[in-house]
Amino acid sequence: MTEFDRPDPALVKELGRHSAATIHEAQGRRGALASSIKPVDHRMSLCGPAFTVRCAPRDNLMLQVAIASARPGDVVVVSAGEYAEAGSFGDVLANACLAKGIAGLVTDTGVRDTAELRALGFPVFSYSVSIKGTVKETVGPLAEPVLIGGELVRPGDVVRGDADGVVVVRQEELGEVIEASQAREAAEAEYIAAYRAGKSVIEVSRLAPVLEAKGFTAG
Amino acid sequence: MTEFDRPDPALVKELGRHSAATIHEAQGRRGALASSIKPVDHRMSLCGPAFTVRCAPRDNLMLQVAIASARPGDVVVVSAGEYAEAGSFGDVLANACLAKGIAGLVTDTGVRDTAELRALGFPVFSYSVSIKGTVKETVGPLAEPVLIGGELVRPGDVVRGDADGVVVVRQEELGEVIEASQAREAAEAEYIAAYRAGKSVIEVSRLAPVLEAKGFTAG
Amino acid sequence: MTEFDRPDPALVKELGRHSAATIHEAQGRRGALASSIKPVDHRMSLCGPAFTVRCAPRDNLMLQVAIASARPGDVVVVSAGEYAEAGSFGDVLANACLAKGIAGLVTDTGVRDTAELRALGFPVFSYSVSIKGTVKETVGPLAEPVLIGGELVRPGDVVRGDADGVVVVRQEELGEVIEASQAREAAEAEYIAAYRAGKSVIEVSRLAPVLEAKGFTAG
Amino acid sequence: MTEFDRPDPALVKELGRHSAATIHEAQGRRGALASSIKPVDHRMSLCGPAFTVRCAPRDNLMLQVAIASARPGDVVVVSAGEYAEAGSFGDVLANACLAKGIAGLVTDTGVRDTAELRALGFPVFSYSVSIKGTVKETVGPLAEPVLIGGELVRPGDVVRGDADGVVVVRQEELGEVIEASQAREAAEAEYIAAYRAGKSVIEVSRLAPVLEAKGFTAG
Amino acid sequence: MTEFDRPDPALVKELGRHSAATIHEAQGRRGALASSIKPVDHRMSLCGPAFTVRCAPRDNLMLQVAIASARPGDVVVVSAGEYAEAGSFGDVLANACLAKGIAGLVTDTGVRDTAELRALGFPVFSYSVSIKGTVKETVGPLAEPVLIGGELVRPGDVVRGDADGVVVVRQEELGEVIEASQAREAAEAEYIAAYRAGKSVIEVSRLAPVLEAKGFTAG
Amino acid sequence: MTEFDRPDPALVKELGRHSAATIHEAQGRRGALASSIKPVDHRMSLCGPAFTVRCAPRDNLMLQVAIASARPGDVVVVSAGEYAEAGSFGDVLANACLAKGIAGLVTDTGVRDTAELRALGFPVFSYSVSIKGTVKETVGPLAEPVLIGGELVRPGDVVRGDADGVVVVRQEELGEVIEASQAREAAEAEYIAAYRAGKSVIEVSRLAPVLEAKGFTAG
Repeated sequence: MTEFDRPDPALVKELGRHSAATIHEAQGRRGALASSIKPVDHRMSLCGPAFTVRCAPRDNLMLQVAIASARPGDVVVVSAGEYAEAGSFGDVLANACLAKGIAGLVTDTGVRDTAELRALGFPVFSYSVSIKGTVKETVGPLAEPVLIGGELVRPGDVVRGDADGVVVVRQEELGEVIEASQAREAAEAEYIAAYRAGKSVIEVSRLAPVLEAKGFTAG
Repeated sequence: MTEFDRPDPALVKELGRHSAATIHEAQGRRGALASSIKPVDHRMSLCGPAFTVRCAPRDNLMLQVAIASARPGDVVVVSAGEYAEAGSFGDVLANACLAKGIAGLVTDTGVRDTAELRALGFPVFSYSVSIKGTVKETVGPLAEPVLIGGELVRPGDVVRGDADGVVVVRQEELGEVIEASQAREAAEAEYIAAYRAGKSVIEVSRLAPVLEAKGFTAG
Repeated sequence: MTEFDRPDPALVKELGRHSAATIHEAQGRRGALASSIKPVDHRMSLCGPAFTVRCAPRDNLMLQVAIASARPGDVVVVSAGEYAEAGSFGDVLANACLAKGIAGLVTDTGVRDTAELRALGFPVFSYSVSIKGTVKETVGPLAEPVLIGGELVRPGDVVRGDADGVVVVRQEELGEVIEASQAREAAEAEYIAAYRAGKSVIEVSRLAPVLEAKGFTAG
Repeated sequence: MTEFDRPDPALVKELGRHSAATIHEAQGRRGALASSIKPVDHRMSLCGPAFTVRCAPRDNLMLQVAIASARPGDVVVVSAGEYAEAGSFGDVLANACLAKGIAGLVTDTGVRDTAELRALGFPVFSYSVSIKGTVKETVGPLAEPVLIGGELVRPGDVVRGDADGVVVVRQEELGEVIEASQAREAAEAEYIAAYRAGKSVIEVSRLAPVLEAKGFTAG
Repeated sequence: MTEFDRPDPALVKELGRHSAATIHEAQGRRGALASSIKPVDHRMSLCGPAFTVRCAPRDNLMLQVAIASARPGDVVVVSAGEYAEAGSFGDVLANACLAKGIAGLVTDTGVRDTAELRALGFPVFSYSVSIKGTVKETVGPLAEPVLIGGELVRPGDVVRGDADGVVVVRQEELGEVIEASQAREAAEAEYIAAYRAGKSVIEVSRLAPVLEAKGFTAG
Repeated sequence: MTEFDRPDPALVKELGRHSAATIHEAQGRRGALASSIKPVDHRMSLCGPAFTVRCAPRDNLMLQVAIASARPGDVVVVSAGEYAEAGSFGDVLANACLAKGIAGLVTDTGVRDTAELRALGFPVFSYSVSIKGTVKETVGPLAEPVLIGGELVRPGDVVRGDADGVVVVRQEELGEVIEASQAREAAEAEYIAAYRAGKSVIEVSRLAPVLEAKGFTAG
């Protein structure tokens, strides 16, 4: 039931060299989760195939099953209904993840023990930080497509998170997205070099014809 | 009017050895304030008997009276209507608190001068950070039970705050909550050791019978 | 079209010695932007004349024109409709700003590349952090008064931002606001000294007659 | 376990002659639930002793037990964590309530089948309207004090709801609150008569000395 | 490009006999859009195949193209980024829809001219009501799957909206969902009859074994 | 102090023949207050010169002074900090307004006694409906420009509210806005007639060249 294809680890590693924002742009401005899903600490960063799970709000039964079922390198992606007032994951389960080599956690509900998460260096992206405990009552789908932060994430798709938030890349598009990310970074480096050389934004972004077409004339 | 029993300082100190999340769990998942009340900096931490006060939104008259009336070790707990756009407390009053040995501040309105609060090391948990000034117009109850973050806090109850948020412990339950917190931490240490020894979450959390009873069969 | 008076740089520098909260108080509790506009990092700080611009939500065409048109020392102030799900500014444009000597950016929409913004030390105050890209489609007014965070900001008014948020000072009031800020800081220093010398808040804030007039009698 | 004292039905009926706002004022501005808890239709109105229950978010098991346990005339008051995305109550359970003579429902989660609720004339005050189904998984306290809308409601306290929202009256204060409500309505009738006779608000509300004391002089 | 299969109109009509809440339950609690998407008036109701379109926030260019391209009986479903401050649709376009026989509109941005929409009897479900105008600047996908209210809606899927909100049914599941809805309504009618005959909720919902299994004993 | 020019009543009456949305468009998409400020009932409608006042949150002292100072036909516009949990205006003050011939109230805080407001037919546009009482403590500016709903409203500017919300028109632009509104309504009538005659949106809105310029080709 929880068998699914995972991408080539070398490609995942390569994708992780690019920022979430660059990847989002490189794949045509798709895949960015809502800005309400943030890293617990801005230094946290992750990249890995999604092991998806759906939990009921304030219930982490299936999250625990997901940790038990995920493989080294996976990122556990938990859709739980954008419920802020629950701490569904903390230092005990983070130790379970680290022991298994899980690469991180992304969730649209709350987490807790954030001081320990920082100390452990386990990357967690969540909708809130909440002390409040959860129950273990409700079963739900494991390793099936989930909606989180307004985006569809399928098992084996790659999630990349950094200080700016989280983006998802379709597994089958991984190679081309890496290439497009590299191209975009090269282009951005040129832009930055042009700015440092004193060129204007209007020149570098080639805005003059755009503005003219819209009838805007600078004073 | 502002006389009330305070708990044994040795017990307060002992409680402060446990995290807010552990305490919340240890007392049966009670007492956690809403996740919207957060530390100004994630390194801030406090533990002490509550000196409660009710202010009008955008009015810190009674907060000042509370600081004047609180005792060393107290945490001033200000209920002010979950109003974000007011900076009701800043570096001047933080100096007043420090001079009196007040242990910290918890409020459901805003604070300001956060750079100075960080530099002073005075722990403040608030609903927002806001520049906007307050008036000194409205009297209100002092050292009486208040509602804050969806919880009732009575004078002399103990509030514990850390990176995850704030929890309140009833004064009369302090001893048993400390014991339960110690027991919980010991249990959690065992869980963590089991994970590090390679055991599965399903085994450690004894989830197999729960899942079976609910008709969930792993693939 | 984008010509406007700017204040004396020496006065701007002088204003920047005071905190946003002090300035807000000193000018009669006016000018504070909404608390939802925050620094990307609490160590960020800025002070400079506003170069104002109005963008459509999710559209940074005019922001780029503003960067091209602003002068060294200006703060670009972007009103874009309090839209959270757009990263309208990032490291490439931050390099363009730094190359031109622009002093910072204040916006009521989102920004991205926050790790790079921190590394570059370019101060940015925003409504959100979002990965999501913007279009370059819509023209709008440049260097005209804009509403942002519930306040009116005119070109050449001075914006001051720090860990607590952003305040705007009318250009024509700059001198008197600096004086009032200095006076207020001196008064606050006296308050703090009085607290450290053991005086009560009620004494220092002269609250006794206020409380008496309102019928409040301490226990 | 669910035995508790209920107030004299004649007093409950008398209280129901006054609006929620009048009662709130009459008891010293206490007891109003948050404005986010609203009637499904502005014509709905209720008054009765609270039968309290605590549910988990998205779980209506205990709500059903409460309906089974409540008595004719009771208002079922459900605290469920301010969770918007759940329709925990609908036309089937409304029929169960009507069959038992239950006077209405107040909840801080969602309800559904609102067309039928309107047609049945069963008064429901809720935090949201949501289609989404709930589970029946979690037990919780019945007929014990609950927090809802920022207020404490105890079994047997009287809840009064109308177009403006919901207020709670302590059972032991019922008589005096009715008297104070009557007095307030009489006073308000006099105010209204005075306005209709052409008197000024400043005269009727006796604001002149207040304004003068604060240094306000009308132009 | 905008060609897609539509379901049998007789089945669509049949589905429309059931409420959105019943359909949501009948298909296993799937498909309900977020509760923030509401009818402009609680008497509005719609059922039809989705003609999907993606707009930029504050931009209704593609919405107009969608109206031009949709067929009689279609419901135009507009995903526009949950932006509240835009009135992207009003009485002029409602007349265009009525002239073409379009069955209604569902959107996650704002609409306006709501008095006229009520008078015309054209059903509109939206995220907000806003006066503010939109631009016609940005192209986007037409008749492709869109995310709205946290759910995926594909062209030709059937959307059903009523006073409680909106639910989507997969086109290929339409027949079985209708059957399950009929079965559910029959069961609910039996429940209601049982309540009217004086049976208890615990008996009718068969809660006794559930409660016993969870250790709950009624007093 | 509260003397200011008011527009010609005949022009105000003429403006009131147009909807808020039409006026907003006619004046170049300016002046619409935030969508969070709504009529208490969708049948409420107002049009009149603004009598502006600034109150502290949860304080209606100056609102009462404003009612005493306003003239027949004025709309009282109250800026009070977007605070939801206060019922700053109710049936008693509505009677005072009606006795004076005041045309309506617009506020960014809460109101109460909404059943009576409906019965009296006094139009009120507010940010919330709240039972909670206010104090009469804080003086503030009267008949000076205020910010409300993100817009600047000056005394004597005309505010127009209907089911869609509120728009403000500068006093000096009243004549031209009326003309532009009439022109727009005529144009809209033509659009509607064209739709009813079976013309396509793309034809009526002349979208073909726009779409072509952007590279969009319909299938």
